[in-house]
Amino acid sequence: MIALIYAHPHPTRSRANRVLLDAVCELPSVTVHSLYDRYPDFDIDVAAERRLLLESQLIVWQHPIMWYSAPALQKLWFDTVLANGWATGDGGTALVGKSCLWVTTTGGPSDTYTPQGAHRFPFSAFTPAIEMTARYCGMHWLPPLVVHGAHEIDKLALHQCAAEYRQRLLNFVAAGEDG
Amino acid sequence: MIALIYAHPHPTRSRANRVLLDAVCELPSVTVHSLYDRYPDFDIDVAAERRLLLESQLIVWQHPIMWYSAPALQKLWFDTVLANGWATGDGGTALVGKSCLWVTTTGGPSDTYTPQGAHRFPFSAFTPAIEMTARYCGMHWLPPLVVHGAHEIDKLALHQCAAEYRQRLLNFVAAGEDG
Repeated sequence: MIALIYAHPHPTRSRANRVLLDAVCELPSVTVHSLYDRYPDFDIDVAAERRLLLESQLIVWQHPIMWYSAPALQKLWFDTVLANGWATGDGGTALVGKSCLWVTTTGGPSDTYTPQGAHRFPFSAFTPAIEMTARYCGMHWLPPLVVHGAHEIDKLALHQCAAEYRQRLLNFVAAGEDG
Repeated sequence: MIALIYAHPHPTRSRANRVLLDAVCELPSVTVHSLYDRYPDFDIDVAAERRLLLESQLIVWQHPIMWYSAPALQKLWFDTVLANGWATGDGGTALVGKSCLWVTTTGGPSDTYTPQGAHRFPFSAFTPAIEMTARYCGMHWLPPLVVHGAHEIDKLALHQCAAEYRQRLLNFVAAGEDG
């Protein structure tokens, strides 16, 4: 089972995330929780989110980058679902040994993440917070899938990213069946 | 004028943040917006927040670190108040030239932010997202005030941090009056 936690504040205005999601959402092993659709009032059903995670071997966090980080509702999901005593701390072992794949898009093309670019830092300067969120829960951190320039990336390149995403999830399921 | 944006999800359970806030909240130039008190339903009054920022020369973001980042309601404040067209992008110059001071606390002591520690990375690995949020809006980024080990720091050391915080705000006001 794969839990796909999707956090896009404006799902209908998404281009890149939509293409990525369409490539994987109907795979039989995948359950999509679209946070902004389920919880428009930011009232997360923590128990339901945890049930999904407990059933899953792979947890995907898919969202656009907003202010160098996850959108607010994804952050609220981190703050509430991954609580001390459940995902961390004493007795907090619910996610230990599961895998985590981060799938994200940036508005700025990759050359904006350079010392001369608008964002000054390489994109990798913004990944430790998300990576350590997974690792601190004892999850296995997979190489992230990052799509830069989401507004302008050409259709072919975007669909190649989507195909890679789909293949990675298929490979994960196949490896589990072999194992 | 100093706008102090305070984001603690459990204000009554705070120790370190309470002491820090108490040291500065009654300074005549400071206006505190406690986000979790004002917006328990995550329904931020964006216009009110922007009015406060427009009147202010220094914007303070004070909050505990949660998951290597700002608490969710502070993140929602970034996502909604600092919108394209107001704080960034075409015509988005509302905050250009203002100063930003980040005041934050971590549960883990400083030695947990080492390669051998629980958080693996130095704390500075988690600051670019907040720093660039300020800088991308054209704000002047002041050296942050970071208090590690918030649960266990001794009273004297905590009050020294609080005194430094107070002095930095007083210095900012005095420099403005001179200028």
